[in-house]
Amino acid sequence: MTREDPSPHAPGTSTPAAAGARIDLNADLGESFGAWRMGDDAALLAQVTSANIACGFHAGDPAIMQQTVALAVAAGVAIGAHVALPDLQGFGRREMRISPAEAHAMTLYQLGALGAFARAAGSRVSHLKPHGALYNMAARDAALADAIAAAARAFDPGLLLVGLAGSELPRAGERAGLPVAHEGFADRRYASDGTLLPRHEAGAVIDDPQEAIAQALRMAVAGEVATCGGVRALRIDTLCVHGDHPGAVAAARALRTALAGAGVVVAAVAPAAGTRA
Amino acid sequence: MTREDPSPHAPGTSTPAAAGARIDLNADLGESFGAWRMGDDAALLAQVTSANIACGFHAGDPAIMQQTVALAVAAGVAIGAHVALPDLQGFGRREMRISPAEAHAMTLYQLGALGAFARAAGSRVSHLKPHGALYNMAARDAALADAIAAAARAFDPGLLLVGLAGSELPRAGERAGLPVAHEGFADRRYASDGTLLPRHEAGAVIDDPQEAIAQALRMAVAGEVATCGGVRALRIDTLCVHGDHPGAVAAARALRTALAGAGVVVAAVAPAAGTRA
Amino acid sequence: MTREDPSPHAPGTSTPAAAGARIDLNADLGESFGAWRMGDDAALLAQVTSANIACGFHAGDPAIMQQTVALAVAAGVAIGAHVALPDLQGFGRREMRISPAEAHAMTLYQLGALGAFARAAGSRVSHLKPHGALYNMAARDAALADAIAAAARAFDPGLLLVGLAGSELPRAGERAGLPVAHEGFADRRYASDGTLLPRHEAGAVIDDPQEAIAQALRMAVAGEVATCGGVRALRIDTLCVHGDHPGAVAAARALRTALAGAGVVVAAVAPAAGTRA
Amino acid sequence: MTREDPSPHAPGTSTPAAAGARIDLNADLGESFGAWRMGDDAALLAQVTSANIACGFHAGDPAIMQQTVALAVAAGVAIGAHVALPDLQGFGRREMRISPAEAHAMTLYQLGALGAFARAAGSRVSHLKPHGALYNMAARDAALADAIAAAARAFDPGLLLVGLAGSELPRAGERAGLPVAHEGFADRRYASDGTLLPRHEAGAVIDDPQEAIAQALRMAVAGEVATCGGVRALRIDTLCVHGDHPGAVAAARALRTALAGAGVVVAAVAPAAGTRA
Repeated sequence: MTREDPSPHAPGTSTPAAAGARIDLNADLGESFGAWRMGDDAALLAQVTSANIACGFHAGDPAIMQQTVALAVAAGVAIGAHVALPDLQGFGRREMRISPAEAHAMTLYQLGALGAFARAAGSRVSHLKPHGALYNMAARDAALADAIAAAARAFDPGLLLVGLAGSELPRAGERAGLPVAHEGFADRRYASDGTLLPRHEAGAVIDDPQEAIAQALRMAVAGEVATCGGVRALRIDTLCVHGDHPGAVAAARALRTALAGAGVVVAAVAPAAGTRA
Repeated sequence: MTREDPSPHAPGTSTPAAAGARIDLNADLGESFGAWRMGDDAALLAQVTSANIACGFHAGDPAIMQQTVALAVAAGVAIGAHVALPDLQGFGRREMRISPAEAHAMTLYQLGALGAFARAAGSRVSHLKPHGALYNMAARDAALADAIAAAARAFDPGLLLVGLAGSELPRAGERAGLPVAHEGFADRRYASDGTLLPRHEAGAVIDDPQEAIAQALRMAVAGEVATCGGVRALRIDTLCVHGDHPGAVAAARALRTALAGAGVVVAAVAPAAGTRA
Repeated sequence: MTREDPSPHAPGTSTPAAAGARIDLNADLGESFGAWRMGDDAALLAQVTSANIACGFHAGDPAIMQQTVALAVAAGVAIGAHVALPDLQGFGRREMRISPAEAHAMTLYQLGALGAFARAAGSRVSHLKPHGALYNMAARDAALADAIAAAARAFDPGLLLVGLAGSELPRAGERAGLPVAHEGFADRRYASDGTLLPRHEAGAVIDDPQEAIAQALRMAVAGEVATCGGVRALRIDTLCVHGDHPGAVAAARALRTALAGAGVVVAAVAPAAGTRA
Repeated sequence: MTREDPSPHAPGTSTPAAAGARIDLNADLGESFGAWRMGDDAALLAQVTSANIACGFHAGDPAIMQQTVALAVAAGVAIGAHVALPDLQGFGRREMRISPAEAHAMTLYQLGALGAFARAAGSRVSHLKPHGALYNMAARDAALADAIAAAARAFDPGLLLVGLAGSELPRAGERAGLPVAHEGFADRRYASDGTLLPRHEAGAVIDDPQEAIAQALRMAVAGEVATCGGVRALRIDTLCVHGDHPGAVAAARALRTALAGAGVVVAAVAPAAGTRA
């Protein structure tokens, strides 16, 4: 199987990808804070094409944002705002009942803060991906999703909005006239309606690295995912690469190798201001 | 020369205001936070030409920043970032020993955050004025001042840097090639070297409104100030109008009337993106 | 007249209560923060018998807690911990999805912090009342209520636990062997199941001061409340007196006068360490 | 061998100590926050006799405080409040210009918060040691030191106050009638006046583990320290064991072994509520 042999393959088989199969790999970065370190950002940046950078609400502080932007620019990786609920102690993972107006304002604030570091580094914010609880809330709450999309559009009408594949957030982005990216998870199992099985349910997480890679390939090449209720078509533009466990970098490298082997072009949806090419 | 041609005033030059005498009036706005209110922003905006808007570090939250920017745009008042130390509890008034690198990063962060609201409102950030303890630190510490100026320049090379008249901050702005504004205080007394008498010293504050107005006129018209050691030339481009006491709005109105009466044009140094004119 | 024998008297008349009718009046105090002021604590303290003092999570900072405790001790008012979610910006009013373990730990933290000020002032924390969103969550979520009750018990087995009348929190307190107080609201309307009508529903708030006083008297004297579905028995040990609007102090004074006129003893459920008596 | 009679034994030799030589080993613990981990608390607790536990201002959150207290109680290690400036982002290491009244209130707040966890675990707070910048400020500023000592005394007149040996803080503790402990640093060099050489000066830190152990023994056995200006008597009751670098636990173990070999009793100055003995 090579890049030069993109053939009409059956989903799930190891047949080569159709011409033009292409996927973005994104990772959450800049999640240190003050004296505390988290993740191996430099190593992850060598594997991914988009960086979701914490903006100070769930993680990240001004100094760390500045450093992370510099690393992303040096790696030619697209810079995204990883916008979160204001909850450092809970790492943005605890849902909070906020109004759409609050979501709108906190999205603009964080976009702008990260944007200043990107501008100072000669780059720009290419995409926006909500973090943690805000991501989940925006996936199912259309009003919240519209508020986030409106903030993104007010900041930059060309900003790429990244959300859970098939969820309310990409729909809101389309309503707002923004480019959107549907995100898939190689290591999570899906319900028959295309949503993620909740983490606390048995079987929600795919622990076997090979199975995760197989799911990633299927998403990238065939645009489909196996669910409890059978195979389902699901547009996936970007895959989330986790960075917060010991084997994260190795897993990312294995995934990238597998994608390349299947002839899938790994590239940012929204190209970075200054790319390696 | 003026409408009322007030006083053949003696200070320094005994000439009345030369044609073109011009001053900016700035006020600190958007200093509410969450459920807490501070100041009468709408009323103050009718009197001043520049608004220093809190950026979330000493006051202000995303929703309040958004509202304050909207008010400033509607009033045609220039929008400035009132950049502060990260100290909500101390309202940014407690000096903190931060490094120039920390000052640089926190300045960029706050500039960007406010900039997003300005952009979303069809405007832009015209100036930067450090708040409280950071203002005082930047007035006397050249390295800190340079770090703030560098952040301002990285954000926007045309950004106006506002600092204590004759202090390290305007000097740093000039070194960085930025436009600068020297700020004077109508209601504070000055030492013979042109610095402010510390607040805790007797006589540091001018309590008599008429005397404050006289000092403002002298600064605006003659470019000089009375100090303990005699009259001293002092370039003043902008006057600070306090908003945090009951008579603040009335005092601002009286000052503006007096300036107009003396033929001084009251206008922002850095014009707002959308002005009333 | 007992709780089991709701009398036919018309609310608002001065029909004296049966011997022993007794009610506590509580108010939320110490809700300033840093440079921001909220409420007229000194005036409210003259009207109420229990003070729920903010502990730094939704409002209050160490200096303000110290001052508020001093005021409460001087007024002979019982000191309570107004324990809240960690959300200064949202004033503790935004629900957050926290685990019972998190609720337990944050309750202990806030109880202890306030307890230190009470101890330093020669007093002690008499009661605990959750604030805002945590109050509502604890009223309907038994596991969360148990966690709060367990923290209260670990801090002091004699601590009075205050919660919405008839809700999960007083039940959890009883399970934990704590003394409990059922709280009523003079100015809110109740559903037929004894819960509060949600604020956003029409008619949820009683705007007429006389009607509010009548409801308070009925609660205190007869142990009952009018609901959409008819009169309902409801044990009420303490009435919440709001302090965050202009007429708050006058309303509290009117309520207290009406209660006294009806022969109701107004006294803390949990007596303060140093009472006026 | 007494403090007045510095013995001729060579530091680092195993010359046994005179009867009664005794030292406490303390370490900073509970410095994780939210999702971020710091230090190996469980391992350090096996080596030290006193734990300085972060109270949420520079590190630590309610859940982590609760866990750390549980670990300390299980290890029979004395619990201390590691009281800090309110600066999570700066880890309490940036000096802030606070008033004595602010220091007093923030000390009480943190003491109480930790005290609640200690009480819930059947223990109590035995000592107080300021952290980071507050430690340094309290070592040289008598008014600040008095404010901290007054807060300690108001919380518990038997609380042990730990500060830099020979500095303002132990003096303030003595003025307040509190038991005090003078702290020494095995791995720092001292100026001839008994103060620490500032970290940024060359030679401020002792990098050689053997030399650090020798200095610790000399402090513990002979009550003296080598300074740039010769040997100086210095009362040392407790030694600080650092935990924030990779070899920390091994270094602590080596120190403890060396102290035992020299016949020095390693024990808390303030015994834990439930000790192993």
